[in-house]
Amino acid sequence: MKKTITLVAALAVSGAALAQQTLKPEEAIQIRQAGYRYLSWSMGKIKANLDGTYNKAQVIAAAETIKAIANSGMGALYVAGSDKTVNGVKTSVRPEFFSKPQEVGKVAQAFNKEANELARIAATGDSAAVKAQFGKVGGTCKACHDDFKYK
Amino acid sequence: MKKTITLVAALAVSGAALAQQTLKPEEAIQIRQAGYRYLSWSMGKIKANLDGTYNKAQVIAAAETIKAIANSGMGALYVAGSDKTVNGVKTSVRPEFFSKPQEVGKVAQAFNKEANELARIAATGDSAAVKAQFGKVGGTCKACHDDFKYK
Repeated sequence: MKKTITLVAALAVSGAALAQQTLKPEEAIQIRQAGYRYLSWSMGKIKANLDGTYNKAQVIAAAETIKAIANSGMGALYVAGSDKTVNGVKTSVRPEFFSKPQEVGKVAQAFNKEANELARIAATGDSAAVKAQFGKVGGTCKACHDDFKYK
Repeated sequence: MKKTITLVAALAVSGAALAQQTLKPEEAIQIRQAGYRYLSWSMGKIKANLDGTYNKAQVIAAAETIKAIANSGMGALYVAGSDKTVNGVKTSVRPEFFSKPQEVGKVAQAFNKEANELARIAATGDSAAVKAQFGKVGGTCKACHDDFKYK
């Protein structure tokens, strides 16, 4: 429990007191998976734009979605008891996610930083720069998956 | 199919050609449900802030998430064949959603407008104004649910 609190503090949007909804572990798992799914769709849209016809407005919308989810305080969704399958709701998070809060904080901060930068670059409409930055965001996704997510 | 295309056009982020990923109907259902779930969590966070300790940064992050999802082009997720349970993936969308694209466009535009305004107001930190605007956003959610979602 203490580790979870540390983790939440590391990932939260602010160090100040936060009003939190009380979430059951299975709800927290479902919400965080929803966030990652929507994020993944947004990443896929940017890739489709880079591989096909580039639509600036669509890339901006997708990048803004990625940025918003990255900054939404997902750490609050890793509540105590959400480290394993609970009431039939599966999770692919590794135990290391809960036992290494500092390392998680690092990959989370890297993701936020690159996602914020992607949104900034998307607004310029420079597809080559978006492509380069998109790769950096994808790299932060992979870094977290490699260390903290079961295949 | 023609109706679906009209609907997508009404809800899309731009009238220009859009690069779209090819989504199976069941994938589209799962992604749109993920978006609504994450949206709902963000709405719940704002409510928790209004009912309890108000944290400006957390409300901004939640409002930005709602705004981003509202502007993410969800219309593209209502692909042909996603109007009913498909491959075991259930949907609670009503058939009217697909047969009344103009009405859907109206509720979608109202939601976008109020969500954008909520993010603008959240940035000011004026909790009373946030409370009033939060009610307006919730009203647009309800309007769509009443007409286009099974209970």
